[in-house]
Amino acid sequence: MSKKLWGGRFAKGTDPLVEEFTKSIQYDKKLAKYDVLGSLVHIQVLKSAGLLSPKDFTTLNNGLKSILNNIQLGNPIVHNEEDIHTFIQNVLQKSVGPAALKLHTARSRNDQVVFSVKLYCKDMLAEAGVEIIKLEKAFLGLAAKYADVILPGFTHLQHAQPVYLKDYLGAYVEMLKRDNQRLQDIKETISLTMGSGALAGTPVPAAKYSVKIDIPELLEIGVEKISAPANSLDTVSDRDFVIEIISALAILGMHLSRLAEDLVLWASQEFDFVEIDDAFCTGSSLMPQKKNPDVLELVRGNCGRLYGNLVSVLAMMKGLPLAYNRDMQLDKEPLFDSFELVSIELKVLSGLVRTLSFNKAKIEEHLKDESLYATDLVYYLVGKGVAFKEAHTIVGNLVKYSLEHDILIKSLPEKTIRQFSEKLVKQQIVKLFDARVSVKGKRSIKRRN
Amino acid sequence: MSKKLWGGRFAKGTDPLVEEFTKSIQYDKKLAKYDVLGSLVHIQVLKSAGLLSPKDFTTLNNGLKSILNNIQLGNPIVHNEEDIHTFIQNVLQKSVGPAALKLHTARSRNDQVVFSVKLYCKDMLAEAGVEIIKLEKAFLGLAAKYADVILPGFTHLQHAQPVYLKDYLGAYVEMLKRDNQRLQDIKETISLTMGSGALAGTPVPAAKYSVKIDIPELLEIGVEKISAPANSLDTVSDRDFVIEIISALAILGMHLSRLAEDLVLWASQEFDFVEIDDAFCTGSSLMPQKKNPDVLELVRGNCGRLYGNLVSVLAMMKGLPLAYNRDMQLDKEPLFDSFELVSIELKVLSGLVRTLSFNKAKIEEHLKDESLYATDLVYYLVGKGVAFKEAHTIVGNLVKYSLEHDILIKSLPEKTIRQFSEKLVKQQIVKLFDARVSVKGKRSIKRRN
Amino acid sequence: MSKKLWGGRFAKGTDPLVEEFTKSIQYDKKLAKYDVLGSLVHIQVLKSAGLLSPKDFTTLNNGLKSILNNIQLGNPIVHNEEDIHTFIQNVLQKSVGPAALKLHTARSRNDQVVFSVKLYCKDMLAEAGVEIIKLEKAFLGLAAKYADVILPGFTHLQHAQPVYLKDYLGAYVEMLKRDNQRLQDIKETISLTMGSGALAGTPVPAAKYSVKIDIPELLEIGVEKISAPANSLDTVSDRDFVIEIISALAILGMHLSRLAEDLVLWASQEFDFVEIDDAFCTGSSLMPQKKNPDVLELVRGNCGRLYGNLVSVLAMMKGLPLAYNRDMQLDKEPLFDSFELVSIELKVLSGLVRTLSFNKAKIEEHLKDESLYATDLVYYLVGKGVAFKEAHTIVGNLVKYSLEHDILIKSLPEKTIRQFSEKLVKQQIVKLFDARVSVKGKRSIKRRN
Amino acid sequence: MSKKLWGGRFAKGTDPLVEEFTKSIQYDKKLAKYDVLGSLVHIQVLKSAGLLSPKDFTTLNNGLKSILNNIQLGNPIVHNEEDIHTFIQNVLQKSVGPAALKLHTARSRNDQVVFSVKLYCKDMLAEAGVEIIKLEKAFLGLAAKYADVILPGFTHLQHAQPVYLKDYLGAYVEMLKRDNQRLQDIKETISLTMGSGALAGTPVPAAKYSVKIDIPELLEIGVEKISAPANSLDTVSDRDFVIEIISALAILGMHLSRLAEDLVLWASQEFDFVEIDDAFCTGSSLMPQKKNPDVLELVRGNCGRLYGNLVSVLAMMKGLPLAYNRDMQLDKEPLFDSFELVSIELKVLSGLVRTLSFNKAKIEEHLKDESLYATDLVYYLVGKGVAFKEAHTIVGNLVKYSLEHDILIKSLPEKTIRQFSEKLVKQQIVKLFDARVSVKGKRSIKRRN
Repeated sequence: MSKKLWGGRFAKGTDPLVEEFTKSIQYDKKLAKYDVLGSLVHIQVLKSAGLLSPKDFTTLNNGLKSILNNIQLGNPIVHNEEDIHTFIQNVLQKSVGPAALKLHTARSRNDQVVFSVKLYCKDMLAEAGVEIIKLEKAFLGLAAKYADVILPGFTHLQHAQPVYLKDYLGAYVEMLKRDNQRLQDIKETISLTMGSGALAGTPVPAAKYSVKIDIPELLEIGVEKISAPANSLDTVSDRDFVIEIISALAILGMHLSRLAEDLVLWASQEFDFVEIDDAFCTGSSLMPQKKNPDVLELVRGNCGRLYGNLVSVLAMMKGLPLAYNRDMQLDKEPLFDSFELVSIELKVLSGLVRTLSFNKAKIEEHLKDESLYATDLVYYLVGKGVAFKEAHTIVGNLVKYSLEHDILIKSLPEKTIRQFSEKLVKQQIVKLFDARVSVKGKRSIKRRN
Repeated sequence: MSKKLWGGRFAKGTDPLVEEFTKSIQYDKKLAKYDVLGSLVHIQVLKSAGLLSPKDFTTLNNGLKSILNNIQLGNPIVHNEEDIHTFIQNVLQKSVGPAALKLHTARSRNDQVVFSVKLYCKDMLAEAGVEIIKLEKAFLGLAAKYADVILPGFTHLQHAQPVYLKDYLGAYVEMLKRDNQRLQDIKETISLTMGSGALAGTPVPAAKYSVKIDIPELLEIGVEKISAPANSLDTVSDRDFVIEIISALAILGMHLSRLAEDLVLWASQEFDFVEIDDAFCTGSSLMPQKKNPDVLELVRGNCGRLYGNLVSVLAMMKGLPLAYNRDMQLDKEPLFDSFELVSIELKVLSGLVRTLSFNKAKIEEHLKDESLYATDLVYYLVGKGVAFKEAHTIVGNLVKYSLEHDILIKSLPEKTIRQFSEKLVKQQIVKLFDARVSVKGKRSIKRRN
Repeated sequence: MSKKLWGGRFAKGTDPLVEEFTKSIQYDKKLAKYDVLGSLVHIQVLKSAGLLSPKDFTTLNNGLKSILNNIQLGNPIVHNEEDIHTFIQNVLQKSVGPAALKLHTARSRNDQVVFSVKLYCKDMLAEAGVEIIKLEKAFLGLAAKYADVILPGFTHLQHAQPVYLKDYLGAYVEMLKRDNQRLQDIKETISLTMGSGALAGTPVPAAKYSVKIDIPELLEIGVEKISAPANSLDTVSDRDFVIEIISALAILGMHLSRLAEDLVLWASQEFDFVEIDDAFCTGSSLMPQKKNPDVLELVRGNCGRLYGNLVSVLAMMKGLPLAYNRDMQLDKEPLFDSFELVSIELKVLSGLVRTLSFNKAKIEEHLKDESLYATDLVYYLVGKGVAFKEAHTIVGNLVKYSLEHDILIKSLPEKTIRQFSEKLVKQQIVKLFDARVSVKGKRSIKRRN
Repeated sequence: MSKKLWGGRFAKGTDPLVEEFTKSIQYDKKLAKYDVLGSLVHIQVLKSAGLLSPKDFTTLNNGLKSILNNIQLGNPIVHNEEDIHTFIQNVLQKSVGPAALKLHTARSRNDQVVFSVKLYCKDMLAEAGVEIIKLEKAFLGLAAKYADVILPGFTHLQHAQPVYLKDYLGAYVEMLKRDNQRLQDIKETISLTMGSGALAGTPVPAAKYSVKIDIPELLEIGVEKISAPANSLDTVSDRDFVIEIISALAILGMHLSRLAEDLVLWASQEFDFVEIDDAFCTGSSLMPQKKNPDVLELVRGNCGRLYGNLVSVLAMMKGLPLAYNRDMQLDKEPLFDSFELVSIELKVLSGLVRTLSFNKAKIEEHLKDESLYATDLVYYLVGKGVAFKEAHTIVGNLVKYSLEHDILIKSLPEKTIRQFSEKLVKQQIVKLFDARVSVKGKRSIKRRN
C-alpha cells in the first residue's frame, strides 16, 4: 500500500525531483494542530452518519488526541512526507492500525486543507488583534507621558501648523484601530464547513455536518459550530479569505512603514526630535559612532514584502478554471509569511515605541518658526470680517515680505504690518506666534480619549 | 488675485511644465458633483458657526446649487484649471462675486478632497452593488434554464466527478455575493467628517460639524449625517478606504477572470460545451472563420490591470511621513479606473451570460467517461464495509487495469472485476456509471435556492 | 461590406456595450504613424512577391503617404472605429478606392500590431535617451557649480562621513547612465519582422521579407531592414519587449523617487540644505506660508504607478496559452503611460535640478558634527598599527564617552583621550575633524569626470 | 569585546526580539562561499596597500582558504550570529587569532555585502543558463521526435490554422533563448568593485583595487579582475542588478506558466493531445482515477510568486534616500527565492517535456475541422486576383453558410459554392482542406534549425 493518500492507479513512481518540487510539509506543518482538530470533527460526522462504528470512533478519537498532544508539546515533524495531512495520516496509522484507513471516508484533501487553513487564520487573526492592541497601548502610554508636548505638524514634509504630539501618535492609534477592525471582521466572515468532497459533495446528508463543537481547542479559537457548504465547487476553490487577510496585513504593514519613516526622520541629526533606545538600534562595522534605526528600516522595507505576498496570491489565482487547481497550494507560504512578519513587527515596535525618548528642547526650538502660525493669522483676519481668500492672500504677502527681508513678522514695525492690512494689529498678532495658543484655538476635533 | 487657491507668498509663477505635471482636473473632474455637495454642507457649518452671514449663505447656496445643476445636466468642465476644486471656486466667483471668497473659510483642500472622494466612493459602491446583482440574476436565470444539465466537474482541469451545471454557475453566484458584501461593508465603514483643516483642525467647534443632512443628492447616496473628526492628522492622510475598495475590486476582477477562463475553455472546439452569442464575439482580419471570445479575454486580461491599480496605490502610500503629502493625489486615477473597469465588465458579462447557449449533446458525451464515477465506486465499497483507504486503492487498481487494457469497466467480465474485490458486484456497479445517479447521491450540500 | 476588418461570418451585429468595451482607438491612435509606416513596408513586400501590381502599389503608396502626412500635421483621429488600424484602412479606402482592399493581403492584425508597437517603442526609447542625457547634464552642471561643497553623507539617514556634493549628485548620474544603457540595449534587441500572419506564417516566401528600408521616417528611428520571423507563433504572442521596457522604466522611476525623497528631506526646515525654485513648487489653499515640493512628491508617488503598470502587464501575460490572445491588447495603455510619465518627469526634473540652490552655510554647520569623523579616527589608529577591529572599538568607546559627558572629543583633555588608547595624540587628531581633510583622505574612487 | 562587527559605542545590549528580527544568517548563509572569496581578494588589496604585513596576509589567506574548504565540503553554518559575514569573521578569529581583527580594515559591510551578492548572482546566472539550455534541448528533442506532427494552431483558444508541432515547441525555444540572452547580458553588466567603504570610499588608493584575479573559484565564475568604484555612494546603494535579475526571472517564469497552461489544456480529456508521464503527475486522496498535472499547475502558480518577489524588492527600494539603508538587506530572500524556484522548475520541466507523449490519432481528428483552412481559401482567391478584403468576406460567408446548414464545405454542391464566388472551383478547393498542404503553403518562416 502506498504511503501517499493516493497512488493506486499509477503504473510508475513519482520522479524524485517532482517529489521535492511538489511537497509542502516544510511549510504546511504549521497546519498540524488545525488538521488534527478538523479530523476530530470529521470523525464525529462519520459516526453520526453511521460510517464509523463507535469502537472505531473511539480508536481514532484517542489516536488523534494523542497526536494533538504531541504537536502541542512541540514534538518535531519529520519532513519526508508529501504534506502535513499525509504525515498525520501515517502517524495515526502507525499508532492505531487499520482503523486509520477509515479516517478519510467521504473526505477530500481539497476540503480538508481549506478547513485547516481557515482554522489557522481564525487563530492567527485573534493573535494579531492582541498584538495590535499592545502597540496601541504603547502609543497611548507615550502620548500620556508627553501629553503637553507640541511639535511642528508637517504636510509635504514642510512646517504646516503646530500639533499636539499626542494627536500625532493618536493618528497611528486610529490606523491600528482600523487595522484591527478589518482583521476581526474577516475573522467573523470565515465560515467553517465540511462536506464539499473534492468538488461535488459527499454522500453524507447535509444535516450530519451541523456539528455543535465541544472540543476545547476549537472553542478557544471561537469555533462553536460547523455546517454543510452552500456550494461545494466554490468552497474548495475559494481563496478570497486568504487574499482579504493578506491585503489587510499589507495595509497594516503600510501604516507601520509610515511610522517607521516618521521615526527615522525624527531620529536624524537634522530633526533630532526623538532618541531611539539603544536596545532597538544597531551599529556599523566601519563607523564606530553609528547608531542606526535598523528596526525601523526593516519595518519600512518589509512593507514591500507584504505587498509582494499579496501580488503573489492575486497573480496565482488569476484565470484559474473551476474548481480546485494545485496552484492554490501556493497560497500558504505568502499567508504564513505575512502573518509572521506582522506579528514580530508589532511586538518589536511595541518595545521600541514604549522606550522612545523625545527631545523637548529641540522640538521647542522648531516651534519658533513663525510660518507655523500663518494660518492663525488668516483666522484672525477672518474673525475681523476679512473674506477667507483675501485674508489668505494678505498673510501670504506678509510672509513673503518677512522671508525676503529676512525679518521676523514679530519684529516688523507696526507701520509695515499695517501696509498689508489695516486690520492687522501688531499687539494682537504677536500673541498668535505661540504653539499653545495655536493648538488650543483648534476646537474642531472630537478626540476619542 | 491669483486664480489658484494659493499663491500669495510666491515671488515667481509656476513653470508651465510643472502646471501640466501637477494638474489633476483631467481626471478629478469626476468629483465635480461631490465637491459641490461637500461645499453645500460646509457652508451650513460656517453659517451655524457664525462665520457666514445668512445673506452670504443664501448667495453661496444658490450659486452652488446652480453649479450642481449644471454638472448634472452634463455641462462640460474646462481643463485649464489646476483641479476641479479650483474650477468650481472660480466658476462660483464669477457667478456670485465676492461672497465666493468666503467659501473656503476654515477649510483645506486636503480635507475637501478626502470628503469628495469618500462621497464618490459611496455612490460608486452602491452602483457596483446594483450591477453585481444583475449579473447574479443572469447566472440564476441561466441555471434555471439548464436546471437538469449535468457536466463533468473538473479539478486540475481533469475529469473529477459529475456536477450540476447549476452548481457550477452557482459557484460564481457565491463569489459575487461575497464581492457585493465586501463592497457594501466598505461603504458602511466610510464615515464622512469635516473639520480636519490641513492637518490641525479648525477654529470651528466640533459640535458645529454634527450636521444633519437634508440635501436630496446626499440622502440618495445614503449620507444622513456628518461629524467632526476624531483625529485630524489621520483624516487627511488616510487612504485606507481607497485601498480597501481597489483590493475588493481586484478580488472581484479575479473572480471574473476565472469565469472568463472557464468560458473560453468551454467555447473551444475541443470542449464545445457552450456557444457564445455572436453579439459578444469578434472576428479576425485574416481568418474569416474565426469567432473569438474577445470580451472574455479582455475580462481575463483586465484582471491584471485591477491588480496593477492596487499595487500602484499601495506602493505610493508606502513610507509616507504624516500628514498629507502630494503623492496621495495619485490615488484617484487607479480608483476611478478600477471602478469603471469593473462596472463595464459587469454590464457586458450580464448580457453575455444571459445569452450563453449550452451544447447539451456534446456535454452528455463527455459524461460517458467512466473515470467520473470512480469515487462513487469507492463509496459503494465503503457502504459494504471496506475501509475508505482500502477502497480507494481497489478502485485505483481497477481503473488502471481498465485503462491499460483499454476496456471499459462496464465491459469487463464479472470474474475480472471480482479479482479486485469480492465485494464488487457487476450488476450493481454498472448502475453507478450514471451522472444522474452520481449527483443525486451527493447529499451534503445545503443549497441556498 | 462591413466597416470592420472582419465580419463576413457573423450572423448578428456586435452588442454596443461590447463595441465600447473592446475598442482601443482611444489609446492606440498613438500608433497611427507607426501603423502607416508598417503598411508602407508591407506593400513593398506584396509588390515584390507579385501580390500587388505596380499600379496598385503606387496607388496605395501615395494614399498611405498622404495619410502619414496628415498624421504628422496633427490632424485629429476620429474615435468611432474599433482601432487605429481599422481607422487607417477605412480612410485609405475612402481616398484610394478598391485598391485599399488589397492592403491586408497576407497580413494579420496580430502581426501588424506587434510591428507598430515595436516601432513605437524604438522611437520612444530614443526619445527617452535624449531626456535622460539632459537630466544627467543638469546634475553635472549643478555638481560643477557646487564643486567644492561637502555635506554630511548619510547611511540609515544618520550622519556617516563627509562626502562631496558632486559625488552625491554623481550617484544619480550613475543611475541615469545605467537606465539609459538599459533602455538603449532593449532598443537594439527589438527586431522587426513581417510575415508571421495570424500565427502560421503566410504564403509569401521568407526572402521577400528581407526588405532594405528607404523610408526616411523609418531610417530616422534607426530601422534599416526588416526580415522574416524565425518563429511565427512566438512573434505574434511575444510581449517580452514590452515587459522589459516597462520594467526598465520602473527602475528609472525608482531612481527618480529616491532623488525626490532626498530633495524633499533636504528642503525641509529641519535639513534646510537646499531651496527649490518657486517655479517648481506649489502652495496651500489654507496655509499661506506653504511652499511645497509637489513636483518631487508626485515623482515619488508616480513610482507606484510605474510599478503598477509593470504588474498589470505581467499579470495579464501569466498563463496565456499560445498563440495570440486578445488579453495582449492590454499591454498598450501601461506601456504608453509608463513612457509618457517618465518623459514628463525627466523634463520637469531637468528644470528643477538646474535651478536648485544649496544653502552652504547651513550645510557647513552640520559638518561640525564630530561623529562624521569617527571613521577617520579609526583609520588614524590603523595607520599607527592598531588592528582595525580594535581601533573600531577604541573609537566607539571614545564617542560614547563624548556623548555621555556631552563634551566634544576636541575639547577633551589629552589625558582623557589617552585613556582610550596611548596612540591617540590630541594634537594630531583634532586636525581630523575637518570635512576637507576627510574627503581628501578617501583615495579609492576612480571618478568618471 | 563584542561578538558583533560593531558595538563599541553602545551603552546597552540589543533587545532579543530585535536580534531575532534583524538577523539574516538564516538566509544569507548562502553567501558564505562568496563572502570568503571576497575576503581573499580584499586581503590582497590590503597587502599591496601596505595595510597588511606579508605574515598577516599568509595567516589570513590560509585561514580563509580553510574556511572556504569547509563551506565547500558542506559543513553546517550555525545560526546564532547576526549574519554570515559576522559568522565567518568569528570563525576566522577563533582559528587564526588576532590577525583576524585586521580583516575588515578599510572595508564596510555595505561594500562587502554588495560584492558577495554580485558574486552569487554571477554564479547563479551561469547555472541558470545551463539549465535553460537543457530545457531547450528537451524541446528540440521532442520536436525532432514528432517532426511530422501537425496540430490545430490556436488564437483566442479557437482553431486558427494548422501548424507544425515542432513550430509550436519552437516558440518556447525562442522564449528560452531570449531568457538566457537576457540573463547572460545581466551577468556581463555586473561589475565587481571594492573600495566604496560605507559610502565615502577608503584611504586605499584606487589603483590598489585593480586586482588581477588568480583564485580558481573566482575564475570559474568568470571573474578575472576587480576595480575601484566610479562612485562609492552609488555602489553601496545600488540594487539595480537585483531587480534586473528578478525581473528577468519573472519573465522566464511567465513563459513557463504559458507552457504549463498549454500542457494542462492539452492533457485534459477534452483536448487529449498529450499524455504526461506518470512520474510527473500525482493523484487524488478521494478520487482514485485522477492523474493530475500538479507539476505544471505549480509552475503556473509559482509565476505569481516570481512576480511577488519582484514587487517586494521594487516597493522596498522606492523612495529610499541615499546612500545605504537597512531596508536593502531585504533584497536577498526574494532574489534567492527567485533563483531557486526557477532552477528547480527548469530541471523538473526538462524531465517532463522529454517524456511527453503525443496522441497523434486524436490530434489528427481535430485537423478535420474545415475552419482551419478558411485562410487558405482566402489565399486561393487572392491568387485568382480577388482583392484580399473581398476574398475574406466571400470565405466568411461561405463558412457561415456551412455552419448554419451544418454541411461541410467539401460536401456542398459545386453550384452552391459558386454562388459565393465564381472563382471557387470545387475540385481545386477540396484539396485545400489538408493540413500538410496548408503548412507547406506557408513559406514566410526562416526557421533557425
